[in-house]
Amino acid sequence: MTRPSAKLIQAAQAASRRLADRDTPFIYNAWYVAAFAEEVGEALLRRTLLGKRVVMFRTSEGRAVVLDDRCPHRSFPLSASRRDGDTIVCGYHGLRFDSHGDCVEAPSQSPCPKGIGVRAYAVVEHGPLLWIWMGDPAEADPAQLPPAAWITDPAWETSHGYMDLRASYVRLHENLLDLTHLSFLHAATIGTPDYAGAAYQTELGDGRFALVRNVVPTSLPPVWGEPTGLYGKPTAARIARSEFHSPAMHEVNVAFYDTALPAESRPEFRIRTAHLPTPETATSTHYFVVHGRDFAQQDAAITHAMHERLFAAFHEDVVGLALQEELLASADEDFHEMSLAADGPAIAMRRYIKARAEAEMAARAAARQAEGSVAARAQPQPA
Amino acid sequence: MTRPSAKLIQAAQAASRRLADRDTPFIYNAWYVAAFAEEVGEALLRRTLLGKRVVMFRTSEGRAVVLDDRCPHRSFPLSASRRDGDTIVCGYHGLRFDSHGDCVEAPSQSPCPKGIGVRAYAVVEHGPLLWIWMGDPAEADPAQLPPAAWITDPAWETSHGYMDLRASYVRLHENLLDLTHLSFLHAATIGTPDYAGAAYQTELGDGRFALVRNVVPTSLPPVWGEPTGLYGKPTAARIARSEFHSPAMHEVNVAFYDTALPAESRPEFRIRTAHLPTPETATSTHYFVVHGRDFAQQDAAITHAMHERLFAAFHEDVVGLALQEELLASADEDFHEMSLAADGPAIAMRRYIKARAEAEMAARAAARQAEGSVAARAQPQPA
Amino acid sequence: MTRPSAKLIQAAQAASRRLADRDTPFIYNAWYVAAFAEEVGEALLRRTLLGKRVVMFRTSEGRAVVLDDRCPHRSFPLSASRRDGDTIVCGYHGLRFDSHGDCVEAPSQSPCPKGIGVRAYAVVEHGPLLWIWMGDPAEADPAQLPPAAWITDPAWETSHGYMDLRASYVRLHENLLDLTHLSFLHAATIGTPDYAGAAYQTELGDGRFALVRNVVPTSLPPVWGEPTGLYGKPTAARIARSEFHSPAMHEVNVAFYDTALPAESRPEFRIRTAHLPTPETATSTHYFVVHGRDFAQQDAAITHAMHERLFAAFHEDVVGLALQEELLASADEDFHEMSLAADGPAIAMRRYIKARAEAEMAARAAARQAEGSVAARAQPQPA
Repeated sequence: MTRPSAKLIQAAQAASRRLADRDTPFIYNAWYVAAFAEEVGEALLRRTLLGKRVVMFRTSEGRAVVLDDRCPHRSFPLSASRRDGDTIVCGYHGLRFDSHGDCVEAPSQSPCPKGIGVRAYAVVEHGPLLWIWMGDPAEADPAQLPPAAWITDPAWETSHGYMDLRASYVRLHENLLDLTHLSFLHAATIGTPDYAGAAYQTELGDGRFALVRNVVPTSLPPVWGEPTGLYGKPTAARIARSEFHSPAMHEVNVAFYDTALPAESRPEFRIRTAHLPTPETATSTHYFVVHGRDFAQQDAAITHAMHERLFAAFHEDVVGLALQEELLASADEDFHEMSLAADGPAIAMRRYIKARAEAEMAARAAARQAEGSVAARAQPQPA
Repeated sequence: MTRPSAKLIQAAQAASRRLADRDTPFIYNAWYVAAFAEEVGEALLRRTLLGKRVVMFRTSEGRAVVLDDRCPHRSFPLSASRRDGDTIVCGYHGLRFDSHGDCVEAPSQSPCPKGIGVRAYAVVEHGPLLWIWMGDPAEADPAQLPPAAWITDPAWETSHGYMDLRASYVRLHENLLDLTHLSFLHAATIGTPDYAGAAYQTELGDGRFALVRNVVPTSLPPVWGEPTGLYGKPTAARIARSEFHSPAMHEVNVAFYDTALPAESRPEFRIRTAHLPTPETATSTHYFVVHGRDFAQQDAAITHAMHERLFAAFHEDVVGLALQEELLASADEDFHEMSLAADGPAIAMRRYIKARAEAEMAARAAARQAEGSVAARAQPQPA
Repeated sequence: MTRPSAKLIQAAQAASRRLADRDTPFIYNAWYVAAFAEEVGEALLRRTLLGKRVVMFRTSEGRAVVLDDRCPHRSFPLSASRRDGDTIVCGYHGLRFDSHGDCVEAPSQSPCPKGIGVRAYAVVEHGPLLWIWMGDPAEADPAQLPPAAWITDPAWETSHGYMDLRASYVRLHENLLDLTHLSFLHAATIGTPDYAGAAYQTELGDGRFALVRNVVPTSLPPVWGEPTGLYGKPTAARIARSEFHSPAMHEVNVAFYDTALPAESRPEFRIRTAHLPTPETATSTHYFVVHGRDFAQQDAAITHAMHERLFAAFHEDVVGLALQEELLASADEDFHEMSLAADGPAIAMRRYIKARAEAEMAARAAARQAEGSVAARAQPQPA
């Protein structure tokens, strides 16, 4: 077309204004993966999570600790400081913080002033994952952890990996909720040409959004065809359910079987992937992944081969989303995005994130103001 | 001086406010060089022109195509996608766009929704140049192409080249309209000491601005002295006309002859250079150049030697203008520029660009608003 | 702590608002070190001082010259131009500036227009230092130079060096006024563990702020223990006075002696360090240092060893302050700093800088407005 019509552009822009994107505030009241458990040990580990710098370590008793990384005295990074037992001694003026974030020693001043410290975040360790709650501490309820019990269930053989995604976590969630892209972005790895056009159903709940694709019959790519023995058969079934569970987790479940065999006796193979994005900044994301399968659990060679092939595909997402983010950054007044029917769950998810983020931000501002008033009243008044 | 007077600074600042500079909007309603014709072929070529990302390719029938680079569905770059025949298949979700920019297939949805597409820009190919019109399509009149018929005229032997200029196109035009700088910036290449002080005339028209310098008598630098046989003679004439034709083209014409010979019988040698800047961003420019001569047309060695020497000089401009741009970027409240008499044409040109750019921007905003009103009226009203 | 209380955070934030930091305007009405004298010679030297680009050179008679680096005609850097005798010929259009900054030749125009030029800054050369005054020229009084006569006094053996500090000069002054950090940031070089807890007195004057630490008895680190012969003795005294003299100079004086010897006959060794920060930008600083001692003046090996060891320690400050600056850059709404008793002089100094900078900025704006009114009245009125 010579150019898209003004009417179409303006309608698309109006629809997009309701969707979360790179300029949407973070949702703090949620559990996010801070690190793989194995990353947190004796050494001080620095990371930026939801825009905030933290430092992590594991106490001598094995408890994972996450503190704000900034010494509240003169803003020196604790992650560039020295660990001494289960305390951190600031590398600038020597303030010592215990594993609860409390300042317990100030070398230039004795006794140490009261009430100085850094925030210690609530954390929950579960299998390979260290979860963190960076929102209101009063709401840090482990019962709200995304449902991922299978990760430590021996019925599931798992592997995990990390990617540095140079894009917003919102766009990664969007990517995962519409697997149409498997036929194109992943044409050389996990996609097949028939995937994009396969029938699908959507499920739009309250904070849970899913899309189920039935690719039947199909041929499986080697990554799954080989370990299931279905490779080369044109009668395979691939039933994929993509579901947004929380800002911090999207789960993909896929079942494979051979439609040429009787339904009651055919073997069924299942894989499951927890995609665990934790925003670093508005346009960069720590992309943690745990992948599992419920078959051939003891076969290390299969574990290795599936991991390698699957992460090659996830790397295609990382490259593609960074290219998308680069274009989003150069948006001008004509910028607009048009949605298709298969975007339904992703649109609902992006509306949900935006609404939740904005409600949380408003509540936070109100709480800050209320605390300020209390603090002001608590000040000694000038005579 | 201890410091320039406040009066002088404020007068200079007031004068500068009427001149185009890096913060002046682009002029879209003009033909610009998008690429050399030879750059556009089977492969998808990505470029940013006037602040907009485009993708270029040539159809199987040889027609050059320039489209917006952004898939309107989810902002994936078409330049990072796959070409399939004369269509581009988006690398993310597979939307297929034909060479007119229309979306003709959406794999997840059949039939393909109507009215989705990317802008296809009007282009005109002329000899080594591919011209593009990025403004109002209704005004894309090939009759408004800058006059450059000589580029394909066999009477002129030409060569061409490209430079990546890290500066505003406005300052390149300014550079070209006051060749005083040949004696300094180009002292080692195409300038001679007498150039800066030579007599000149200016011509200020409506959108056409010129300065003619008569350097007579002079000695020619090797780049022209050698191929004309005038090298070493102190009686040479060098008559140079620098003319701004459009935001996208400045032409320099120079005649050389020997003043020691009778006017009616002496040979006259002419060179001509089309300087073809296309803004990439506010402070970077695609600098295309076509250079020609009307003598020794068959001598490839001369073509090669002149090209090398001339582009060495243009590279001096590229370096110098980037140094200037760096200083302009650090302008503070005392920043000011003082003009000299020889700046007359450049000042007129910069006033012209600023006025034209602002008028065009105002017209664009008005059109957008009018289209919006129409679009709003066309929406179904809530009952 | 789970998190610091809102009351504490808000009180800390309120206190910090009175302190100079990276967003505080520069103080121009002060002498700063522009360069070491030895850096300024025949070649044109480019540097950014207090946010302004300057060019420096030394005339044939040996006078150091500092000019604005920007040709007022078309903003070409004079530092990228050609020196011709004691003038600079602009590399673009050839305007010639003498060592006073006055334009004395414009090749395209004769006679040269009057009143064009670049600012020439008042400079004073003293020993290894070239001081510059970038504020109001009428106030450039050499009597206001920071007191550093000792630098050229033969009783003091000196060496000097330069560091590229990627942090605000305000935070360097703060660093120097609380040497508590010697026990931590410099634990491996010039600090000893007892330093941080040693008794101290503070002196808060009008623009002069000092902290004196008495580390008695102590052991000296090798850098001073070895040249004084006190190394390994647990009876050493180390009396350190840190004093802010001006935005451009902080001086540290330290005396060493052996407390096991009688006060009237024991030798006393003194060192002195002039820390000379000159802001480059809001978050980067030219960090000049002159270090001296009043003993073993003829021993070049001691000079060399002390210089190497001391600058290794200063480099630790450069690294640490850059880490701090990086955290300051990512400050969010919860950002706050808590002060300790030993911060008293630094807090007074930061209040002083902020108040002085803001007063100066207000005066500058008023003067500019007044000059503008005068300039406006001086303009010829249209008939």
